Amino acid sequence: MAKRRVGALFFDGFELLDIFGPLEMFGVLTEHFEIVTIGERQSTFASAQGPRIAVDRAFGDCEKLDLLLVPGGIGTRREVDNPRLIGFLAARYPELEYLASICTGAGLLARAGLLDGRRATTNKAAFDWPVSQGPKTTWVHEARWVEDGNIVTASGVAAGIDMALALIAKLVGEKVALRVANGTEYDWHRDASWDPFAQLYKRGRALV
Amino acid sequence: MAKRRVGALFFDGFELLDIFGPLEMFGVLTEHFEIVTIGERQSTFASAQGPRIAVDRAFGDCEKLDLLLVPGGIGTRREVDNPRLIGFLAARYPELEYLASICTGAGLLARAGLLDGRRATTNKAAFDWPVSQGPKTTWVHEARWVEDGNIVTASGVAAGIDMALALIAKLVGEKVALRVANGTEYDWHRDASWDPFAQLYKRGRALV
Repeated sequence: MAKRRVGALFFDGFELLDIFGPLEMFGVLTEHFEIVTIGERQSTFASAQGPRIAVDRAFGDCEKLDLLLVPGGIGTRREVDNPRLIGFLAARYPELEYLASICTGAGLLARAGLLDGRRATTNKAAFDWPVSQGPKTTWVHEARWVEDGNIVTASGVAAGIDMALALIAKLVGEKVALRVANGTEYDWHRDASWDPFAQLYKRGRALV
Repeated sequence: MAKRRVGALFFDGFELLDIFGPLEMFGVLTEHFEIVTIGERQSTFASAQGPRIAVDRAFGDCEKLDLLLVPGGIGTRREVDNPRLIGFLAARYPELEYLASICTGAGLLARAGLLDGRRATTNKAAFDWPVSQGPKTTWVHEARWVEDGNIVTASGVAAGIDMALALIAKLVGEKVALRVANGTEYDWHRDASWDPFAQLYKRGRALV
C-alpha cells in the first residue's frame, strides 16, 4: 500500500490543537502517511493563539491528496466568505478518500455545500455559528465525531484527536491506532457517541 | 495582574503535540497569557511530523519570560549537543516563574543541569534516553507529570496538556482551567499520579 497523503488546511486564525492533534496522530505513522500543509498562499499563517505555521503548498500547487483535514478557529468566520478557500474545498473534495473537519471547520465544509444532506457535528461551545452555515445539514449535537460517507466532522478542538485515531483504525487497523494512542500517551475515546461536553453547553451557551 | 509571557522553544524535529497541546491551553486565555515562539535563529523549524513553524524570536532577542515550555521529539537527540540551545535554557532559567518540559524535552533540561537533585519524569515509550542525560535526577517512572520546585516535567506527548491545565489551575485558578478544558472538549486528567501508560512500557520497551 502506497503512503496516503494527508493535507492540512491553514488560514490566519486557525485553532492550534484542532489541526496539530490530528497531525500528530497521522504524523507518527511515517510508513503510512505523508503530511502536506496547505494555504491560500505559500506563506506563513498565524494561529488564533499566536504561533505561525509556514505552509508547504499554495492552493494552486498542491498535489493530489488522499485525506484533507480542515481545522476551526476564529479565522473560519472570515474564511467562509473567501471564495478561493471555499472553492479549494469544493474543487478538491472529489479526489479525496476522506474529508475531515474539526471544530468550527465544519462551517467551512458547510459553506462549500459539502455537508448538504449529510449528518455532521461541530464544537459544542460555539455550535450555532457552523449550524447557520449549513441549513441543509442534519446537525448532531451530542457526538464526539460524526461520519457520513467519506466526510467526518469532529466536535471541538481535542475531539479531532479521537476522530484521527478512528480514521487510522479504519484505514490502517485498530492495533496500529492503539499503538499510536499509547505511544503518545493519549487517553483515546473510541466511541463516537461519547460526548460529556454536549451536556455542558446548550446551543452555544455555556451552562457552567 | 499583568499577562504572563509563555515562551515556547522550537528546534528541528520537535514533536507537534508536545508543544501545541499546552500552547492551545495557555493560548485561549488571551487575558492571562501571551505566547512567544523561540528558536536558535529567527527562521522556520520543521517538526518531527513535517509541519514547519516560523518562530517570533531568536535566542538573542527574546524578551523576559515568565514561563518556558520545552517540547520533546527526535530533534532532542541532536540538541543535547547544541551548546547554544542548552546554554539558552541554563541562562534563562533564573528569570522564570516556571520551566516545563514535555516528553523527551526533559532530556534537554537534564543536560542543562536543571534537573540535578530534582524529581522528574519523561515519556514512557522512550524513558531510557532522557534518564541517561540526568544521572543526578530522581526519575519517576509512573506519573502524568512531576512538579519539583518551579520545574515541571510531563510524561509523553499528550501528558503536556494535563500539565498545562495544572499550571493554569495553579496560576489563574481551578475554575478557569476547567473552563479551558471544557471549551476545548479535552478530557482533563487532574491527578498527576494518573498514568496508565507507565504500565504498558518497561524502561522504554513496549510490552504491548
